[in-house]
Amino acid sequence: MFKKILVANRGEIAVRLVQVIHELGAQAVVVYAEPDSDSMAVAMADTAVCIGPGPAAQSYLNMQNVLAAAVLTGAEAIHPGFGFLSESSDFAELCAQAGVVFIGPDALTIKQLGDKAQARSLAARFDVPVIPGSQALQTLAQAQAAALTMGYPLMLKAAAGGGGKGIRMIEDEAALQALWQPAQQEAQAAFGDDAMYLEKVLRQAKHIEVQVLGDQAGHLWVFPERDCSLQRCKQKLIEISPSLQLAATMRQQLQTYAQRLATGVHYQNAGTIEFLVDDSGVYFMEMNTRIQVEHPISEFVTGVELLRLQIMIAAGEPLPGGSRVLAAHGVAIECRINADVEGGADQITQVRWPLGGAGVRVDTGITAGTKLTPYYDAMLAKLIVHADSAALAWRRLERALGELKFQGVKTNVASQLALIASPVVQAGGATITYVEENDAQTTTSNAR
Amino acid sequence: MFKKILVANRGEIAVRLVQVIHELGAQAVVVYAEPDSDSMAVAMADTAVCIGPGPAAQSYLNMQNVLAAAVLTGAEAIHPGFGFLSESSDFAELCAQAGVVFIGPDALTIKQLGDKAQARSLAARFDVPVIPGSQALQTLAQAQAAALTMGYPLMLKAAAGGGGKGIRMIEDEAALQALWQPAQQEAQAAFGDDAMYLEKVLRQAKHIEVQVLGDQAGHLWVFPERDCSLQRCKQKLIEISPSLQLAATMRQQLQTYAQRLATGVHYQNAGTIEFLVDDSGVYFMEMNTRIQVEHPISEFVTGVELLRLQIMIAAGEPLPGGSRVLAAHGVAIECRINADVEGGADQITQVRWPLGGAGVRVDTGITAGTKLTPYYDAMLAKLIVHADSAALAWRRLERALGELKFQGVKTNVASQLALIASPVVQAGGATITYVEENDAQTTTSNAR
Repeated sequence: MFKKILVANRGEIAVRLVQVIHELGAQAVVVYAEPDSDSMAVAMADTAVCIGPGPAAQSYLNMQNVLAAAVLTGAEAIHPGFGFLSESSDFAELCAQAGVVFIGPDALTIKQLGDKAQARSLAARFDVPVIPGSQALQTLAQAQAAALTMGYPLMLKAAAGGGGKGIRMIEDEAALQALWQPAQQEAQAAFGDDAMYLEKVLRQAKHIEVQVLGDQAGHLWVFPERDCSLQRCKQKLIEISPSLQLAATMRQQLQTYAQRLATGVHYQNAGTIEFLVDDSGVYFMEMNTRIQVEHPISEFVTGVELLRLQIMIAAGEPLPGGSRVLAAHGVAIECRINADVEGGADQITQVRWPLGGAGVRVDTGITAGTKLTPYYDAMLAKLIVHADSAALAWRRLERALGELKFQGVKTNVASQLALIASPVVQAGGATITYVEENDAQTTTSNAR
Repeated sequence: MFKKILVANRGEIAVRLVQVIHELGAQAVVVYAEPDSDSMAVAMADTAVCIGPGPAAQSYLNMQNVLAAAVLTGAEAIHPGFGFLSESSDFAELCAQAGVVFIGPDALTIKQLGDKAQARSLAARFDVPVIPGSQALQTLAQAQAAALTMGYPLMLKAAAGGGGKGIRMIEDEAALQALWQPAQQEAQAAFGDDAMYLEKVLRQAKHIEVQVLGDQAGHLWVFPERDCSLQRCKQKLIEISPSLQLAATMRQQLQTYAQRLATGVHYQNAGTIEFLVDDSGVYFMEMNTRIQVEHPISEFVTGVELLRLQIMIAAGEPLPGGSRVLAAHGVAIECRINADVEGGADQITQVRWPLGGAGVRVDTGITAGTKLTPYYDAMLAKLIVHADSAALAWRRLERALGELKFQGVKTNVASQLALIASPVVQAGGATITYVEENDAQTTTSNAR
């Protein structure tokens, strides 16, 4: 096992990683940007190294600085968390060259699956159904030609994408003309790559994803699915595991496809295969080659600790008991608590967490006194609940959300409470368009 | 199910009860003494009723006031928590007369088991071995006669006792003469009853207890044992479930004895049977006819929610699946976080909880701003951890304790960290004298 591990991230995932590293009996090095010098992760670290100013490009995305911090502190491995360098094949490659273990799959796997067009080809090669879509597109003319064959509506996506960046809904030819350039520019800015592709739009589909974990000996664990259909502007709001309305045959299909793709690419470490699911079937969207924000719900229903196993796998340890499909015990729900920051920096003056009892977990990197900066995303905490039944899990989430109080910052707590009050949401029936359709209805009825 | 339930307690257990009541979809009435008017439980309650000034005798122990609050607010049931009225057969009787459900066993069961001498007779009747001891004693002369037959060392105990009150270690005749009167006075003050009894002292014994839960249909659940040997001045400091060093045959015996006694008295609701265990065998000490402080470790290893089931049982619901002995999954440890209050009131100005990740739970009634008063016990919080293995559970406890920070109040966190660093403690080998022997050694070596 490693003796010293570097955490190349910030916020709640950095805190969690320090905790997991300490529980493994190892030392934690945390790298941080200047605005994070007072962060909880920095305070908890055994060693903290400043790697640059606020903007991520100059710090958390600065590969040389992160790697130099690992080499200088003698860290044997780097955990990239999610976002930032977590899906950079270049960084994984640099780590390998410097003799530092990148905790994740190898650079080639990241590269192949990170290119969305290439990932679709890979999926098809392993008999995993994909959403009908185009090849990689560089110009508007290419896109127009592809759209003509496929028919509208279509989704325009960044080939190198993820996290909702560079994505546009294209209803017709005029929309394609208008939105091509901004989408391509956004893709270039976010991923340093302007290749795009078009995908058929599945209306009334659910976003369902399957977590996998592969070890160096070739064993694969397939986790119960997560239903992440509750999204606004492509950002997940609430995630549920297992899905509350998935037919057994479709669950089986998802598991088989996830297994086929992960085994096909000899996948190592943690990854998530995202699908769209509607009445017509199950379609591969993409594979994220990193740990995801919503991993705690999988931990709750299986009792498996993903971050811990990621590190153990990277250190060469085998998955106990070999390959298997894990069963879900009860129902877990994650609710993302985001700040509603309207420009400028807010300071959280007081927080009241919903402490107490079984089946409630709060993952956070903030505390009373934390200043919010405009540099990073607005997630304050993840509130995760678990119970034997979905009914009790929803009630638990409702009471825990009700206990959560922030001073000094506006949050989405009231809006999340409103969302989970919906019978459609509680029955697990929401599709990916539910939240926005509901927003529109609420706005209309408010306007009357 | 009840629609409105009254919580007749304070601190963390009152907070937990409000949470559980809300998760059951019911309303929570919280009664409070004046110094608790700003408490977390009061803030979370649907209705809060002041029942008197600070001293417990005038508020939390004032049966008429508590019952009047239930009647006035229309609460159908009262949960007494632990301490205060939780083991008062008079209060259970009063509730029954007023048509309010007392969430616990009936008054007769509380009375029989609450009288320690009577409880020992009951245990003996159901073939549960008891520590050799005397009948109830009213005078020093009676005690001296009994001691002559039994031989020293002996433990002098309050017949109506619990919580370490009215207990004295008696090494010889002179000690009995000196300590009889103060112990009897303490018993009278604490329990309103000055009957005492003498018990053989088992040196090098462990305190091991078995949680049971009985429903109105006669079904009984027997939980994995809790090892509560880590005590100072009869106050539990750290509890472990299951015991880490208990032979399988002894575990079996404990379960059988617990089952025999609970079934024998037709026990309803939650109760705990406490045993002393040494190489010579297993001996019944007493049965506590209420929920205990350390119940969360049983919840962690079984997935059963005890407070929730207490309420459901009181509402007439059967235990799902009928009678059984529950298996333990993994290891859970509770660490009590106490304030070190040296007279006067302290105010907690800031708290940092060890949030994040699976297997860590904090039950507390305090938050930043809470004032501590001299009226009540000094427990600030319970830190409870759970993991697949004992080794990981101890590391988790160590890191979580290390993250816990209080401002404005001295605590026992450093002393608990020192205690759990001991290999004897981590191996689960400590007996009931371990902490005090260790204290004495540390003091001696510090003095050198």
